[in-house]
Amino acid sequence: MPRTPTRRSLGPLGLRSPAQLVVAGFAGAVLVGTALLLLPVSRTGEGGTDLVTALFHATSAVCVTGLVTVDTASYWSAFGEVVILGLIQVGGFGTMAFASLLGLLVSRRLGLRTRVTAAAETKSVGLGDVRTVLLGVARTTVLFEAVVAVVLGLRFWLAYDEAPGRAAYLGVFHSISSFNNAGFALWSDSLTRFATDPWVCLPIAVSVIAGGLGFPVLLELRRQLRPRRWSLHTRMTVLATVALLVLGTVFVTANEWRNPQTLGALDPAGRLLAGFFQAVMPRTAGFNSLDYGAMNEGTLLGTSVLMFIGGGSAGTAGGIKVTTFLLLLFVIWAEVRGERDVHAFDRRITDRAARQALTVALLSVAAVVAATVAVVEISRMSTHVVLFEVVSAFATVGLSTGITADLPTPAQLVLVVLMFVGRLGPITLVSALALRERQRLHQNPEGRPLIG
Amino acid sequence: MPRTPTRRSLGPLGLRSPAQLVVAGFAGAVLVGTALLLLPVSRTGEGGTDLVTALFHATSAVCVTGLVTVDTASYWSAFGEVVILGLIQVGGFGTMAFASLLGLLVSRRLGLRTRVTAAAETKSVGLGDVRTVLLGVARTTVLFEAVVAVVLGLRFWLAYDEAPGRAAYLGVFHSISSFNNAGFALWSDSLTRFATDPWVCLPIAVSVIAGGLGFPVLLELRRQLRPRRWSLHTRMTVLATVALLVLGTVFVTANEWRNPQTLGALDPAGRLLAGFFQAVMPRTAGFNSLDYGAMNEGTLLGTSVLMFIGGGSAGTAGGIKVTTFLLLLFVIWAEVRGERDVHAFDRRITDRAARQALTVALLSVAAVVAATVAVVEISRMSTHVVLFEVVSAFATVGLSTGITADLPTPAQLVLVVLMFVGRLGPITLVSALALRERQRLHQNPEGRPLIG
Ligand SMILES: [K+]
Ligand SMILES: [K+]
Repeated sequence: MPRTPTRRSLGPLGLRSPAQLVVAGFAGAVLVGTALLLLPVSRTGEGGTDLVTALFHATSAVCVTGLVTVDTASYWSAFGEVVILGLIQVGGFGTMAFASLLGLLVSRRLGLRTRVTAAAETKSVGLGDVRTVLLGVARTTVLFEAVVAVVLGLRFWLAYDEAPGRAAYLGVFHSISSFNNAGFALWSDSLTRFATDPWVCLPIAVSVIAGGLGFPVLLELRRQLRPRRWSLHTRMTVLATVALLVLGTVFVTANEWRNPQTLGALDPAGRLLAGFFQAVMPRTAGFNSLDYGAMNEGTLLGTSVLMFIGGGSAGTAGGIKVTTFLLLLFVIWAEVRGERDVHAFDRRITDRAARQALTVALLSVAAVVAATVAVVEISRMSTHVVLFEVVSAFATVGLSTGITADLPTPAQLVLVVLMFVGRLGPITLVSALALRERQRLHQNPEGRPLIG
Repeated sequence: MPRTPTRRSLGPLGLRSPAQLVVAGFAGAVLVGTALLLLPVSRTGEGGTDLVTALFHATSAVCVTGLVTVDTASYWSAFGEVVILGLIQVGGFGTMAFASLLGLLVSRRLGLRTRVTAAAETKSVGLGDVRTVLLGVARTTVLFEAVVAVVLGLRFWLAYDEAPGRAAYLGVFHSISSFNNAGFALWSDSLTRFATDPWVCLPIAVSVIAGGLGFPVLLELRRQLRPRRWSLHTRMTVLATVALLVLGTVFVTANEWRNPQTLGALDPAGRLLAGFFQAVMPRTAGFNSLDYGAMNEGTLLGTSVLMFIGGGSAGTAGGIKVTTFLLLLFVIWAEVRGERDVHAFDRRITDRAARQALTVALLSVAAVVAATVAVVEISRMSTHVVLFEVVSAFATVGLSTGITADLPTPAQLVLVVLMFVGRLGPITLVSALALRERQRLHQNPEGRPLIG
């Protein structure tokens, strides 16, 4: 049979309601993961774990969050660790692929050109497109994970005296965890011991940033390095990413410079490296090389803002997404300047896109505020640590001041719901909203970054 | 000379740039107030107060905030108290009148009918309108303040054994402080001692709500009691006010019911009264009959949300205003339902109005977040009390967990700026934005509540 791309819409496969498919797929993965983690073989020592712990970690892994209530390395067996690694890979791949497909579908329906596939004349997403996207995401994933695994493995082997097999395993585990923005680490203090080692921190940071840019951006960067030729989505994502990295690095470094429990303990070069690393991780990887429990409350607040904004669309990052945030800034800027239309670079932003960004941002604020109030009520813990934890769960970051394990079970279940809603809510909400937009008469070239 | 209303635009009087006039007027009032409070005669005991204390309390009074760093009754002399009372009256009257005039100007320019004055054929605001508005605001203010002063004065005289003159003074002071949503009280624990006395709490609550509805709504309610005939602005303001009062009462009462330091110490009827009172005061009067320093952090967070939303436009309340908040909800609702146009009741909300509401809300969030980070950095105090304090200052509420006096001077100056920006920012920003809107061809009847 010749492999001609079929042009059927994905209705038969369930993509007639893409959001439902995504939610069902992720819920299924969480359930399977919970069942696997409940097996006694997943745990070290005697007997299996309890239901809430299994559910929490399966959700945290599938949603590539990285919040944990137990120490990954000592609590889970090698089998358990591999289950978690598998869930991370499924969750990260699933997010990237589904969000890319949904973005493609939205672009097609709205008549916007896209670089993910060449053809733009159709309004539906065919099986050929699905194949292209899945293969592309897979190739990208394997490429980044392999390179980072090799670098990390060599470093662990050569500089930290790990046995070759163990070093390779550590390299693979943390490369998968970083590219998928999962933030699970096999040391109880995350990457704190490597705070001043650029050979560990930089590959992980690059991998995290790449995964967080999102598949459409990675694809376009590979084909076209001249910014002037980039699509609106890529321009906005890259601009916002660079700006947030610079601002975040300056903010964290300046704030913690003299804190003896964090940057103050390091030499100046180490402070810069660790400041940069802690600016990368809120978006939204969740590794840490400094102790968030010892940070200034101001740093925690600023980090919460970074976490809430998150990373790029159709990648492994969470949050409301940098394009959503930047688009709202463009709207405000247009309003303050008194312009009737909102322009971003050379494109006009439609009112509907602006409304969708607004809807995602405000519903996300509402979710965070409601969950913070609920967890404070349940746990009676202090607002600043709860707010940080809640934003971390919602934006699927995984950073914590260390309270996760001490939260009462109902509060942990709130976090489970938040991780799930935070992982899928913005993506599915925006695609659901955008797919209902009717096509309109062609006026000016309209632009529309992926949102959510 | 006959007093024919002139139809000249207010350009010669400075209203060509209304925002500048408002800002200059308020800054002038703050400076005069600071100078008066610096006089030795304003203080009890020997010598005058310091510059920061005088500036802080003049700003707090003119912006009708009510945050204090000293105990009003014992620190200031009778002269000082009267200065503060005068500043409150100037600030409250100024806010109500200026915001009403700006709202009138915006409505005229946008070709919307308004009930503040009968004529709608002109696009400018003439001296006759100014006179109408100023007289209307003055009459409304005197009416509410007089009635409440009499009720409170009688109560203090008959039930609390105050001398008649003293009781009258207390009545006048707290009626002015409540209608203008200022929240200054002459007891160091605010109104805590009257927590279960409906004869004190209810008149103050009614006065606060009335002042917070805003002049255009009060005017319309006086002329027309049938909701079906109300303007969009009045409908939205009344709906949001009632909803927030009910939700706030339930929230505070449920949350604090068993807190032995707050509601738990009262009998059930007293708990309901105090729960209601603490739901009225965040919007944005700032009296309290319970100790906010002893409240659950969840209650503080929920109260912060209420404070941020604030009260009605063109009144004495602060915050982003209930119409701004409700309009954003309508936008989200329309988006979630997939409707192209946003409708509120029977009116279509323009995209520009939605964008203006969004701009006010997000810039306000940014101001609160930035100030919270700054004050946490400066003071090293805990996030939850700082956030509460910052929102209280920005929304000109005046509630506090009790940290105001303990804040370092730079942090107090941040609050001074916040009070000023929070008082004038939303009003002037929206009017500046809206006045630049060009008039458009008449399509459907368009609606536009006052925003900010
Ligand atoms: K993560
Ligand atoms: K107030």
